[in-house]
Amino acid sequence: MMIENPTVQTSQDFLSQVNHEIAHFPFPAQPQGLYEPISYVLAMGGKRIRPVFLLLAHQLYAQPSRKALQAAVALEIFHNYTLLHDDLMDNADKRRDRPTVHKHWDANTAILSGDAMLEVAYRHMFQAAGGCPDALAAFLKTCVEVSEGQQYDMDFEQRLDVTLPEYYEMIRLKTGVLIACALQVGALMGGADTAQSLLLYQYGAAIGRAFQLRDDYLDTFGDAAVFGKRIGGDILEGKKTFLLVSALEKASTPLRREMEQWLQRKDADEQEKIAYFTQIYKELGIPTDYEREMERCFLKSDALFQQMDAPHEAKQALKSFADSLNHRIC
Amino acid sequence: MMIENPTVQTSQDFLSQVNHEIAHFPFPAQPQGLYEPISYVLAMGGKRIRPVFLLLAHQLYAQPSRKALQAAVALEIFHNYTLLHDDLMDNADKRRDRPTVHKHWDANTAILSGDAMLEVAYRHMFQAAGGCPDALAAFLKTCVEVSEGQQYDMDFEQRLDVTLPEYYEMIRLKTGVLIACALQVGALMGGADTAQSLLLYQYGAAIGRAFQLRDDYLDTFGDAAVFGKRIGGDILEGKKTFLLVSALEKASTPLRREMEQWLQRKDADEQEKIAYFTQIYKELGIPTDYEREMERCFLKSDALFQQMDAPHEAKQALKSFADSLNHRIC
Repeated sequence: MMIENPTVQTSQDFLSQVNHEIAHFPFPAQPQGLYEPISYVLAMGGKRIRPVFLLLAHQLYAQPSRKALQAAVALEIFHNYTLLHDDLMDNADKRRDRPTVHKHWDANTAILSGDAMLEVAYRHMFQAAGGCPDALAAFLKTCVEVSEGQQYDMDFEQRLDVTLPEYYEMIRLKTGVLIACALQVGALMGGADTAQSLLLYQYGAAIGRAFQLRDDYLDTFGDAAVFGKRIGGDILEGKKTFLLVSALEKASTPLRREMEQWLQRKDADEQEKIAYFTQIYKELGIPTDYEREMERCFLKSDALFQQMDAPHEAKQALKSFADSLNHRIC
Repeated sequence: MMIENPTVQTSQDFLSQVNHEIAHFPFPAQPQGLYEPISYVLAMGGKRIRPVFLLLAHQLYAQPSRKALQAAVALEIFHNYTLLHDDLMDNADKRRDRPTVHKHWDANTAILSGDAMLEVAYRHMFQAAGGCPDALAAFLKTCVEVSEGQQYDMDFEQRLDVTLPEYYEMIRLKTGVLIACALQVGALMGGADTAQSLLLYQYGAAIGRAFQLRDDYLDTFGDAAVFGKRIGGDILEGKKTFLLVSALEKASTPLRREMEQWLQRKDADEQEKIAYFTQIYKELGIPTDYEREMERCFLKSDALFQQMDAPHEAKQALKSFADSLNHRIC
């Protein structure tokens, strides 16, 4: 008897497949100095959000395929290359409680292994999606945009006059487009038409925006035990987050000057600095602005979700994963 | 009246086209911190050997095309990305008499601009050769190999036991495959069959090998005014060149020990060190070995040239360029 409606796979199923595939990725043994750091980075784990989204989007329109899994892995390798080079540029010591590549080895190893990861990601994506030029084109465009996002993020470190639209554009490029691309590539490889694939792209962009906003919010207002990072880190680094950019925009001129002085004080007591900005954010009603903006993202992603022309069960698998993400980091 | 035999273009024609195309490459204006260093690197000039080879190979099988020119430019952008990151890893101050990117800006700019160059190169190559999967696959494979070559080169800096076969494999990856790939991609995009495209690849690999051997030779035995670099630089850096690797292999055990001691002496007088190794190379007959190996490369490339199934004039244009390269750096 033929199984006419094979069981829909969950995000958990896809996560296992992605992790298995990554653990068995056929990297050459030599030169060891190039490939060992790549395996090290990929073995650090992580949430694998992007490849799982790719596979969930693919499932909306088609049965699981080996090529979709390969494309998912290529996307994850690309994402990990950006983490590797970003950690080097930020001089970060740790990632997921393990030393970063430039700390474990050195800067040159981080540069060259990152380069090779990017090259492997492209090659693997071409092998997976070579037959789907639209998917390939979407990936190629997105990769450049992610670098542009990283550049804006670095540029903003030197500026006190970043506007909210500039902030949104930066997080769109740095975080949004890759999640959007994952969903679009999955849809296109599953045979979705242009309209559906753009819908998936926009859905991913809305989720990516909410994801980054929440990350910004929890860095100040989250619970350290749940969030997994030290609370207040962004404030100490003077990062141009949603909270800071919104607060600077809303503040009266004297208050803005006072905040700018705090930002420029490198010798300030850390707890005092965190307490100061947290208080200012509350006084200016930034948490309410945040809630309102998150609500907008949810409404938008919900409206897009309704328009997805796919079987109910597959849509639910996608929705559960998107919801669980928000839940997890609450 | 139709022109049935349009004039064959020379390497000089192609060089002008490549330079014009690069000067007008549509990089976005923003973020400036990302794209300005890329334009800076590409404006440094250079011999544009790889794109010119690509176009000369393309001309063997087809009339000039816009897509071939785009592929040539993508290849040159890729090559310049490797120079940018290699200069950073080697901490080189200058390239073509101008400050390197990490000196003119900083290390983070060099990392991220290099990454973006690579991403732009892939995107541009896909736009040019998307309709020719074999060409795209050749390019994707080659990019990874070039990083492997750079890794071996860095690994060899720490070793005194590099063998001649290891040396040949390193220069094949670091220098040979990209020239070979240029010729192969040009041939494939011109419609050459698999056999002809592999012939072009091998021809390029032979030329690349001779090119690197000559570079190694001239660094010690060249005329500084013609060579354009300081004579003896490789000796002072202890680089594992054809000369050093051959000499270490040929030396008696006591002489080898003596050479190793010289290599490890960082405080030695520079002129004395250069004179010592130059003398040893002569005594061991390394210049003769070099001549013999170059002869082998020429015989090989000549045999391959004879087998190229293409119009005489187009073949001559290719040969003139290959010959001029050897001449130029003699």
